[in-house]
Amino acid sequence: MTSNRVFNFSAGPATLPLPVLEQAQKELLCYPGAGASVMEISHRSDAFKGILEEAKSNIKTLLGISDEYAVLFTPGGATMQFSMLAMNFLKGATADYINTGSWAKKAIQAAARCGTARSAWSGQEEKFNRTPQPEEPELSPEAAYVHFTSNETIEGIQYATEPDAKGKPLFCDSSSDFLCRPIDISKYALLYAGAQKNIGPSGTAVVVLRKDMLEQVPDGLHPLLDYKVMEENDSLYNTPATFTIYIISLVSRWLLKEIGGLEKMHVINKHKAKMLYEVIDASGGFYRGHAQPACRSIMNVTFRVGTEEQEKAFLSQAKAAGLDGLKGHRSVGGCRASIYNAMPVDGVMTLRDFMLEFQRTNG
Amino acid sequence: MTSNRVFNFSAGPATLPLPVLEQAQKELLCYPGAGASVMEISHRSDAFKGILEEAKSNIKTLLGISDEYAVLFTPGGATMQFSMLAMNFLKGATADYINTGSWAKKAIQAAARCGTARSAWSGQEEKFNRTPQPEEPELSPEAAYVHFTSNETIEGIQYATEPDAKGKPLFCDSSSDFLCRPIDISKYALLYAGAQKNIGPSGTAVVVLRKDMLEQVPDGLHPLLDYKVMEENDSLYNTPATFTIYIISLVSRWLLKEIGGLEKMHVINKHKAKMLYEVIDASGGFYRGHAQPACRSIMNVTFRVGTEEQEKAFLSQAKAAGLDGLKGHRSVGGCRASIYNAMPVDGVMTLRDFMLEFQRTNG
Repeated sequence: MTSNRVFNFSAGPATLPLPVLEQAQKELLCYPGAGASVMEISHRSDAFKGILEEAKSNIKTLLGISDEYAVLFTPGGATMQFSMLAMNFLKGATADYINTGSWAKKAIQAAARCGTARSAWSGQEEKFNRTPQPEEPELSPEAAYVHFTSNETIEGIQYATEPDAKGKPLFCDSSSDFLCRPIDISKYALLYAGAQKNIGPSGTAVVVLRKDMLEQVPDGLHPLLDYKVMEENDSLYNTPATFTIYIISLVSRWLLKEIGGLEKMHVINKHKAKMLYEVIDASGGFYRGHAQPACRSIMNVTFRVGTEEQEKAFLSQAKAAGLDGLKGHRSVGGCRASIYNAMPVDGVMTLRDFMLEFQRTNG
Repeated sequence: MTSNRVFNFSAGPATLPLPVLEQAQKELLCYPGAGASVMEISHRSDAFKGILEEAKSNIKTLLGISDEYAVLFTPGGATMQFSMLAMNFLKGATADYINTGSWAKKAIQAAARCGTARSAWSGQEEKFNRTPQPEEPELSPEAAYVHFTSNETIEGIQYATEPDAKGKPLFCDSSSDFLCRPIDISKYALLYAGAQKNIGPSGTAVVVLRKDMLEQVPDGLHPLLDYKVMEENDSLYNTPATFTIYIISLVSRWLLKEIGGLEKMHVINKHKAKMLYEVIDASGGFYRGHAQPACRSIMNVTFRVGTEEQEKAFLSQAKAAGLDGLKGHRSVGGCRASIYNAMPVDGVMTLRDFMLEFQRTNG
């Protein structure tokens, strides 16, 4: 069945490491020692607790997370986190949001239900083609926290370094660049990511929360939307998305053991992104990147192709050549190559060669 | 790998039909026509939309659900539904809750955050060993709805027929007996079930909602906690738990095509339950069932064994004999055999024979 696999540039759910899928396939009917599929065993069984522990421990090792932080698995992906973090930490007050594009806007809209989600900076007038410089956002002295989106999946822009929160708790939606490079986690009070882009299938978000923040959680929240309840119960207040967490344990193990950690992953990711941006830059305007060069994402490469007609032909010929999922998000159009951690270098080389050949015959 | 599989009597996540697991295993690396694993494809792709449609359509066919109802897949399981239904329909008012045990109590506790979740009936004094007669609950004239738990997983009791809601909207947590028998869905305004007991892996709840209820949904709810948003977006406001929904599509197909529908499933389920209750009843008190006979669950058979010591021996010898997950819930102790739809008759026969033999040698 592997021979039918295409190179899948989908933005999420996204491609997973083939060795992870192969292992999941091998043990799908019977998880070693459990006598049943991972899907069928209790979330309170020793087997599942081992899986949960490994997923947490791998993520802690990869990001160098100390015991000052909790690693949680929460229901509903990043979209639920937009709401949950505001319920827990905004609570009628004001917070600073940096508006870099589609996902930042969604975070702002959700938070506005719980207080004032003020815009500390907006890239709207520049069509969201860049992230701000660290000092650019105009923060409010009364902000409860500063929220940013480390990588805008749809626009294809990514921060080179974190915004300066000026001592306020820094919150980050890292859904589309989680674990793509080393970061200094001590800068963050809250870092969260929907699993389905860089770390597993959909069904959960991974949340890294500095534990001192738990003191701010108000009473009376619904249990699954209360970080204190989630932390006290080690993400097992109810049945979590067990199979999703199992795949996360395998993907994080692959990152740690096969790739060798985030420094090495970062080198590979930069190499993959460079291959595509070089084609764009050398194309004399046939391929036109959306992001300003300094803010280019190494996860989502967004670009337009020649004329409207050529762009359509590009997408359909790419698909026919086994390069799938290259259509840009319905809200902005164009093309997008999502080249997350699990996208092999081979896939990117094949796309690069296809782009060169397409321009040669159509440019 | 199948040869290492045990008979898995876990209460949830629970055993799945073997043919479903085998098919999932076969196409784990490459979903037919998609060129990628189900886990890797966009929730907005044609392939996934086909899966979502089939899951919905199978559930509608199985339960005879008309277009007056929406079938939704929501994040977080039944526990999130306890909160979500109260946010949408309680809203500071009063609702009647029938307290039949552990899960009913959880529903009440969550709803109490949104209004008055009054106890219309409680089995507490009888140690939750029965469900009420249809007319027994004392309903309040101002109740916004009447909530009941069709099967208490932990206590092992199940309603023979729905409580009489006296014209009020009837809400039901059917997590542990969803699709175990035919029901008259027109009696229900809201029926929901965490997936991981009778219909799939964990990661989502299945919600059947009468659409006229949507008029009562207040403005300003968080999008993933707003039934109107979920219905308008066909459960795709954000990325749902796609792999979980895929397995639901396969389990519901198995129910429809292999088993032949809920009438037939019910016959099999009654047959399985009868085998175990007969052993209990004929044991002269060696096995002692928790539920009153008229309220015995056909999904979760709860019982005590001989002395404390014999009970421990029973559990460990059963496990050694490949009969796993028989320990009762940590809150009540004892033994519990969860015999959901996917538990094969063979598994129940093996347990029955083991029980007979254990009593013969230990009783």
